[in-house]
Amino acid sequence: MKKIINDSGTVVDEMIDGFCFAHANQVEKLTDFRVVLRKKKTDHVALISGGGSGHEPAHAGFVGDGMLAAAICGEVFTSPTPDQILEAIKASDTGHGVLLIVKNYTGDVMNFDMAKELAEMEDIKVESVLVDDDIAVEDSTYTAGKRGVAGTVLVHKILGAYARQGKTLEELKTRGDALVERIKTIGVALTAATVPEVGKPGFEIGNDEMEYGVGIHGEPGYKREAIKTSAEMAKELVSKLSEAFSFNQDQKYGVLINGLGATPLMEQYIFLNDVKQELDNQALTIAYTKVGNYMTSLDMAGVSLTVIAFETDEEIDALEETVDTPSWT
Amino acid sequence: MKKIINDSGTVVDEMIDGFCFAHANQVEKLTDFRVVLRKKKTDHVALISGGGSGHEPAHAGFVGDGMLAAAICGEVFTSPTPDQILEAIKASDTGHGVLLIVKNYTGDVMNFDMAKELAEMEDIKVESVLVDDDIAVEDSTYTAGKRGVAGTVLVHKILGAYARQGKTLEELKTRGDALVERIKTIGVALTAATVPEVGKPGFEIGNDEMEYGVGIHGEPGYKREAIKTSAEMAKELVSKLSEAFSFNQDQKYGVLINGLGATPLMEQYIFLNDVKQELDNQALTIAYTKVGNYMTSLDMAGVSLTVIAFETDEEIDALEETVDTPSWT
Repeated sequence: MKKIINDSGTVVDEMIDGFCFAHANQVEKLTDFRVVLRKKKTDHVALISGGGSGHEPAHAGFVGDGMLAAAICGEVFTSPTPDQILEAIKASDTGHGVLLIVKNYTGDVMNFDMAKELAEMEDIKVESVLVDDDIAVEDSTYTAGKRGVAGTVLVHKILGAYARQGKTLEELKTRGDALVERIKTIGVALTAATVPEVGKPGFEIGNDEMEYGVGIHGEPGYKREAIKTSAEMAKELVSKLSEAFSFNQDQKYGVLINGLGATPLMEQYIFLNDVKQELDNQALTIAYTKVGNYMTSLDMAGVSLTVIAFETDEEIDALEETVDTPSWT
Repeated sequence: MKKIINDSGTVVDEMIDGFCFAHANQVEKLTDFRVVLRKKKTDHVALISGGGSGHEPAHAGFVGDGMLAAAICGEVFTSPTPDQILEAIKASDTGHGVLLIVKNYTGDVMNFDMAKELAEMEDIKVESVLVDDDIAVEDSTYTAGKRGVAGTVLVHKILGAYARQGKTLEELKTRGDALVERIKTIGVALTAATVPEVGKPGFEIGNDEMEYGVGIHGEPGYKREAIKTSAEMAKELVSKLSEAFSFNQDQKYGVLINGLGATPLMEQYIFLNDVKQELDNQALTIAYTKVGNYMTSLDMAGVSLTVIAFETDEEIDALEETVDTPSWT
């Protein structure tokens, strides 16, 4: 295993320390918890997200003005516990309530729900939005229903803008639920990630193979093939999204190309170019584009493609608005 | 070779197309040239950089308000030709002159110098600043003198702020030359990058080995060892920088941890944590920190550590100032 670490048991704590030191102007660690907080408290609904570590910059990189109030960092690929989530809620609420943005994995759903109940017992208003954007498979290793992946960061950004505008908890919950319906993702993996505690790649894949639909924890996808060109990968992924969306030439769409960790930006931009071609072929309007490593799977090589169908231009503005976070450019 | 590409001969053109599409609000391609231009022209000295491709987001990701006016993208790991550089100069000059920021490689130095001469023959004022921050080795495969690496992006950012303030070409040249003296970098590679045209890793390295001082084109470093902990790597690299700097407890320093392409952010933050410890041991003041993939070597795993010794707080402010570019967070 080739990693720049000290001890596989302490990677999350050391990462949080490094992160909070690097971005001390924007964030701070909640003492005794694996929680990254906005330094300057919000005067609006607090958005909170989190989950297993290993997906950096998600989610701590999106803590700051205009996005999240806090992120909870679980062990690698493991949900944070309810007590950690509860402390994040208590530290972030400023009386406007807290919205939890949760990726759809059984452990996360259970633990965030439990924290919600505990917080409500302390008279904090809490709602949650569940993100299940990965259309690759219906159920998966750690999931009942579809997995939550890169589309989650678009939810952070759009709801973050709405929260900053002063929308109420109820409005954010309603808008968030509706938004998730219009965000869909599918990916392709070229290599498997290596979890530090495990010390070897999470699955075997040949030197000339790739797999469509792999999850961000290495969950199996839907098809394995000899490695294809970028154009062929784009054709496959867009065709899957096309089935899921029923694309409409009168609607505006946004595209997120997300690197899974070890794939260079050069390849991500080449892939975007091919995705654009496929969407152009269907005469679709792309009104927003984002490229980079936003929801990774440690050192996995590959990309995911997220498409969002916009309902209003307000959503595009919300994505383009400037924020003050460590990792959103 | 596992890459998301179509044809190894067209990776640069396809990347530029994807890049300019993704960031159409900020940049545009100069027609018929591998040049990425700021969309909104400067009303001050234009900073231009570039070099071989494969180091993304450098340099095109730093084109925009507050940093570069243009970036020239050569073939992978190959200097752009003088005619390409000349066109970037002509397209960027708004009468205030042009400052070239050049990494110290023989091909780049020669071609940027030739472009400078050609531009001067067309009555454009041009100066250049040479960056040679890599302290690993004195001369190298493609270099007489020290190589230019990740410290280059700090030069883009600081001089970019000064240019936006309206400083003259002569002032920028003087300040740039002085700045380069106080920026030093050294890295460690865990794997070698694979150039698409070559199809296999640029050098052999064992499964349990790492190499200190490897260049961003895979140039040999100064020491190969069995892979160590992050803390030991930090100790080694800080000790080399310590020799080069003669650290001073009355001075403020800045730190850039730069991922070389395939190394997850998690490891970069853990490494920062260890670097901080080493600098704390020497009672040094770290006044600025940056972490992420800024000057990569395709899919190489590893990190580089850049330290800048600040002469004034104005330099820290220049690094912290908000800019409008695709890749500077």
